[in-house]
Amino acid sequence: MSGNTFGNLFSVTTFGESHGPAIGCVIDGCPPGLELSESDIQPDLDRRKPGTSRHVTQRQESDTVEILSGVYQGKTTGTPIALLIRNEDQRSKDYGNITETFRPGHADYTYWHKYGIRDPRGGGRSSARLTAPVVGAAAIAKKWLFQQYGTVFNGCMSQLGEIQIPFESWDFVAQNPFFAATEDTILITQLEEYMDALRKDGDSIGARIDVVARNVPVGLGEPIYDKLDAEIAYAMMGINAVKGVEIGAGFKSIAQRGSEHGDELTPDGFVGNNSGGILGGISSGQDITVSIAIKPTSSIRTPRRSIDKEGNPVVVETFGRHDPCVGIRATPIAEAMLALVLMDHALRHRAQCGDVKSSQ
Amino acid sequence: MSGNTFGNLFSVTTFGESHGPAIGCVIDGCPPGLELSESDIQPDLDRRKPGTSRHVTQRQESDTVEILSGVYQGKTTGTPIALLIRNEDQRSKDYGNITETFRPGHADYTYWHKYGIRDPRGGGRSSARLTAPVVGAAAIAKKWLFQQYGTVFNGCMSQLGEIQIPFESWDFVAQNPFFAATEDTILITQLEEYMDALRKDGDSIGARIDVVARNVPVGLGEPIYDKLDAEIAYAMMGINAVKGVEIGAGFKSIAQRGSEHGDELTPDGFVGNNSGGILGGISSGQDITVSIAIKPTSSIRTPRRSIDKEGNPVVVETFGRHDPCVGIRATPIAEAMLALVLMDHALRHRAQCGDVKSSQ
Amino acid sequence: MSGNTFGNLFSVTTFGESHGPAIGCVIDGCPPGLELSESDIQPDLDRRKPGTSRHVTQRQESDTVEILSGVYQGKTTGTPIALLIRNEDQRSKDYGNITETFRPGHADYTYWHKYGIRDPRGGGRSSARLTAPVVGAAAIAKKWLFQQYGTVFNGCMSQLGEIQIPFESWDFVAQNPFFAATEDTILITQLEEYMDALRKDGDSIGARIDVVARNVPVGLGEPIYDKLDAEIAYAMMGINAVKGVEIGAGFKSIAQRGSEHGDELTPDGFVGNNSGGILGGISSGQDITVSIAIKPTSSIRTPRRSIDKEGNPVVVETFGRHDPCVGIRATPIAEAMLALVLMDHALRHRAQCGDVKSSQ
Amino acid sequence: MSGNTFGNLFSVTTFGESHGPAIGCVIDGCPPGLELSESDIQPDLDRRKPGTSRHVTQRQESDTVEILSGVYQGKTTGTPIALLIRNEDQRSKDYGNITETFRPGHADYTYWHKYGIRDPRGGGRSSARLTAPVVGAAAIAKKWLFQQYGTVFNGCMSQLGEIQIPFESWDFVAQNPFFAATEDTILITQLEEYMDALRKDGDSIGARIDVVARNVPVGLGEPIYDKLDAEIAYAMMGINAVKGVEIGAGFKSIAQRGSEHGDELTPDGFVGNNSGGILGGISSGQDITVSIAIKPTSSIRTPRRSIDKEGNPVVVETFGRHDPCVGIRATPIAEAMLALVLMDHALRHRAQCGDVKSSQ
Repeated sequence: MSGNTFGNLFSVTTFGESHGPAIGCVIDGCPPGLELSESDIQPDLDRRKPGTSRHVTQRQESDTVEILSGVYQGKTTGTPIALLIRNEDQRSKDYGNITETFRPGHADYTYWHKYGIRDPRGGGRSSARLTAPVVGAAAIAKKWLFQQYGTVFNGCMSQLGEIQIPFESWDFVAQNPFFAATEDTILITQLEEYMDALRKDGDSIGARIDVVARNVPVGLGEPIYDKLDAEIAYAMMGINAVKGVEIGAGFKSIAQRGSEHGDELTPDGFVGNNSGGILGGISSGQDITVSIAIKPTSSIRTPRRSIDKEGNPVVVETFGRHDPCVGIRATPIAEAMLALVLMDHALRHRAQCGDVKSSQ
Repeated sequence: MSGNTFGNLFSVTTFGESHGPAIGCVIDGCPPGLELSESDIQPDLDRRKPGTSRHVTQRQESDTVEILSGVYQGKTTGTPIALLIRNEDQRSKDYGNITETFRPGHADYTYWHKYGIRDPRGGGRSSARLTAPVVGAAAIAKKWLFQQYGTVFNGCMSQLGEIQIPFESWDFVAQNPFFAATEDTILITQLEEYMDALRKDGDSIGARIDVVARNVPVGLGEPIYDKLDAEIAYAMMGINAVKGVEIGAGFKSIAQRGSEHGDELTPDGFVGNNSGGILGGISSGQDITVSIAIKPTSSIRTPRRSIDKEGNPVVVETFGRHDPCVGIRATPIAEAMLALVLMDHALRHRAQCGDVKSSQ
Repeated sequence: MSGNTFGNLFSVTTFGESHGPAIGCVIDGCPPGLELSESDIQPDLDRRKPGTSRHVTQRQESDTVEILSGVYQGKTTGTPIALLIRNEDQRSKDYGNITETFRPGHADYTYWHKYGIRDPRGGGRSSARLTAPVVGAAAIAKKWLFQQYGTVFNGCMSQLGEIQIPFESWDFVAQNPFFAATEDTILITQLEEYMDALRKDGDSIGARIDVVARNVPVGLGEPIYDKLDAEIAYAMMGINAVKGVEIGAGFKSIAQRGSEHGDELTPDGFVGNNSGGILGGISSGQDITVSIAIKPTSSIRTPRRSIDKEGNPVVVETFGRHDPCVGIRATPIAEAMLALVLMDHALRHRAQCGDVKSSQ
Repeated sequence: MSGNTFGNLFSVTTFGESHGPAIGCVIDGCPPGLELSESDIQPDLDRRKPGTSRHVTQRQESDTVEILSGVYQGKTTGTPIALLIRNEDQRSKDYGNITETFRPGHADYTYWHKYGIRDPRGGGRSSARLTAPVVGAAAIAKKWLFQQYGTVFNGCMSQLGEIQIPFESWDFVAQNPFFAATEDTILITQLEEYMDALRKDGDSIGARIDVVARNVPVGLGEPIYDKLDAEIAYAMMGINAVKGVEIGAGFKSIAQRGSEHGDELTPDGFVGNNSGGILGGISSGQDITVSIAIKPTSSIRTPRRSIDKEGNPVVVETFGRHDPCVGIRATPIAEAMLALVLMDHALRHRAQCGDVKSSQ
């Protein structure tokens, strides 16, 4: 109810702050009997962790995960699985200059007004660092969904600032620091130069991330409110810095006619996927396709006007270690959120309707 | 858990199908002592109801609401408020031809696969008619929020198909059948002709709706998952036919630099509103601005390829009474969803942090 | 969250007041495909309804139930099932003398202090009349549980005031107005004379009710908090006037040794049932046995000291129509609550662990 | 939903097993600004911890708590508070002989059937050790409730097996190993000899625990289902080994007349407290009085008949370190559960009705 739990039947309750002793989560509702160890979780955490290229924050965190409960002799027992990640590289002094002022575009202002107190070290709880436990939890969901239905998740960056990044193949995503689905080295070089210039400017930039789930069973999602697309929108908009979410044709639907948008059906399946794999809030068995808009990081070195706690005008420049494009590390996070939504709805489907059949 | 309840502390549980005996909802958590009668609710229902112009479905429903509980001597008592709306104009025979086939782009297919049974009359529960109880519930939320904080809600259509509709003033929204915030009669005529041609074609079209909440208290929203923007995205994407949601600058954020996007602060308040009134998932006291993309109606007269329950190819033409642009009636619905989100978070704020202060 | 919804996956949200226009509920999460009509629900409502003997309130209510949604062509569709019961015999003037004072032992006092307003007509929402929608909802749960697992529910009154009522057979429960599991006509006569004398005195009395569920699948219930016994205790203590709940050996466990209490196991099953069918919060497949203590009705004709809203001393005598032993009608209610708990946990089991096997 | 979270607005999600690396919890919803450090929590943990007298399990655990999040500069920030307690004394070999068999009266049997897998070391998640995190969480609730309303919690053992323990004063509870509210040294000696004999027998015994909350604000609790007494019953029955719960007069209500049971009111307050401080499910401002029945420990050295996983008959004797009367350490646990219920309802009250007034 206080907003730190994600999901209903596969529920993930997270805790921690950017510069506190540890971050982590408790996963409740994982089906028993799933083979699980830290090695199932660490790879996804490694994809998200800071310091992997010069284009992201240089904070050094191994993000080593420890399973504290819920696993016995290498298998889940049906009891809560707690994941613990110790923070290792807290340089809180970097943040000394922002304890009394509010960064434009940052949660500083609203946390202060809501709670009357805030932990300014690294943004406290509002830091994107808090996506790590969720990525860990989602690795468990992914494993289960794959074993049950063969479901797989992929994501990529499709736009960095004004630069469009064409999709070629998921195979290329891991081969560059941008999660770009391309092997076009000229384009990758262009992205690198763009980021280098931006960093030199002390500025930041937005991005677009696309995520897809394949081999999704038909029938996931609830009518009216907990529609699958509604829950995906909730999950994605909950990621730090996300300002927009599209399913399928998204905003392009506005200018489409019904005779163009509605995906026809043949005995061989759907013709087209404007729906993004969801009809009436329920998965159709097609690929689920989601696109999100990520705003530029608000912590930048460029001087900006703001106020302090007393309302006096100040100029804010943010030093410390920040991602100049928070979108770069967002791809594994968006995949994770999509996996958590599908996992929760797979269990909800079992509750009301019995187990789902495999995909379309 | 089965997806028919919206909200946690101001929760609305709806029931009903398009052509069943009645639709309605139970509202739990309304603060006691609010003056309330049907006359507070009916006007919003009337804005949404069918048959108000030739551009929407011609189904005749008075959508007369009856309060069954929770009010004593004209005031809410803190106990559940049940709203009942009897269906009056069910011509189920209109739908006879679709009981065995699936309309392209429609929930027919997924309901069938999920539940193994579906009520085909008027789309059953997947009908946009089911937004009526929510609009009723939201009228109560709006009244309370206005009395407490002066919060007001407005919405308009800003795009119909390819046609952009410039914003001039909220005052004009009620003066045309499109919820267009303009008094440009040439543009209104153009919209009317566009719709007439579309109807003649037996086709449908998408739309963009903008919604704004003003005088919102600072501090609403929870960190991490139940961010205010995440809940708004969930609420909006849950409206029938919505395929995209933006907050503030939305997808334009992708190409913005941090020095452009982050709204500066002065002692007089924020300079700009790229954030759409939400920072770190918590309201900043600025206007909350939301934009949604609505797909074209899937029930159209144009013949389309589909399959029947046995998987055989068929051609589907949908007769019956349908909105050729479901977006036209979406404005009061989007306002309602936004009001429900804010109401719930106003109560959540009271729980953890005590009552909120008035707006910024 | 505001306390008017029972259950998580088979959730029942009720509404209504004793003397308002109607009472009812919305049931969300019922599995699709269950054959259902009003005739499945009415018999349980008839067992609970007032006016069936001279020993209960003489209010005349047919408690006729109408299904408003969720059923199509005689089968549940997986969407919410709304039940509506119109109130027919509201003599609110009977309650005129209690609007300004608080009946000793009654919710009058606390509703007033909590909400600052209360509906005094017939106790408003605190009336035992509000158990009717739950009994209706439970009839659906019972039908599903019986079809899935053969689960059956029985209850009886085992004590009225000081008078013990020995258990002979469930067959006798329907043959007397007390839900006594005996055909001992001398005892029944004694109970009738006891109640007649009590009524003449203008006083009331407590009772003990026993409830049993048989053919319960093994494995229902969650560890730690949502233990099956914890949820049963919650359900039972939520029935009006209940002051105590026991599972299995209950309070007798205090003086038992472990070597006596722990039910031994043989290849033929358990030897004894001190556990009441629940071990570690999870059903064992044995009969679930519950016993509850019901306090005497607080609305009595005997003059009693109290205060009015301003705190002045007054003498309260309650006229109007009341049950002199609210325990008499409690048997079908207790059965209903037990059924709702098991139904919810059957669905929860399916979510996490897949479908349950049939009973032990 | 999977049963490892307690509470709605002050929610406690626990994790861990008796012999895993750690146990702990995440507390979500704690109001910001409360001064908090480990020293506020450790004393309650110390009252509950094992090894404090020869009458409880000799397992050596310091139960040292670490706060991992949610506190900044000595104050709560409104974000989740994670508590971590490392397990220190796991002698899992003690449990080797029970991995293939089921102890009579123990959760072994049902966990196995529910999940198809169980952690047998120390009972895994079903161990009473898992009450430690809850006691820790409740220490925070107690501090807040005391600061807000002056609410205080007390508990004592009032019966050990057949031996009644008269109440004299809360002052004596900490002066003996039984949480007995007496300074009668003869009685204490009798209890000690009773326990010594029992231990020699390799048997166990039940107990009765009474708990009281004083200075409770009027108005806590929700009508119909989330009645305060219903939630207390749920909380108490969820404690390991509890088989019965009473509020106020409890089972004695059965034989009371209404004219005796209903607590009269005078301008000076209530006369008597048969209600146990709750009317219509809502706190009246009187002391809340609860009594629970705790069964004898099921892990005993006395040989008992059981079966193994294949259903073959076996004889089970349980060695290892067990409490011969799990009721002895139940007093601080019962206080903790009562505190958590009141805390949650205090926040729920704020949400719907604004802040509560101080006690009666």
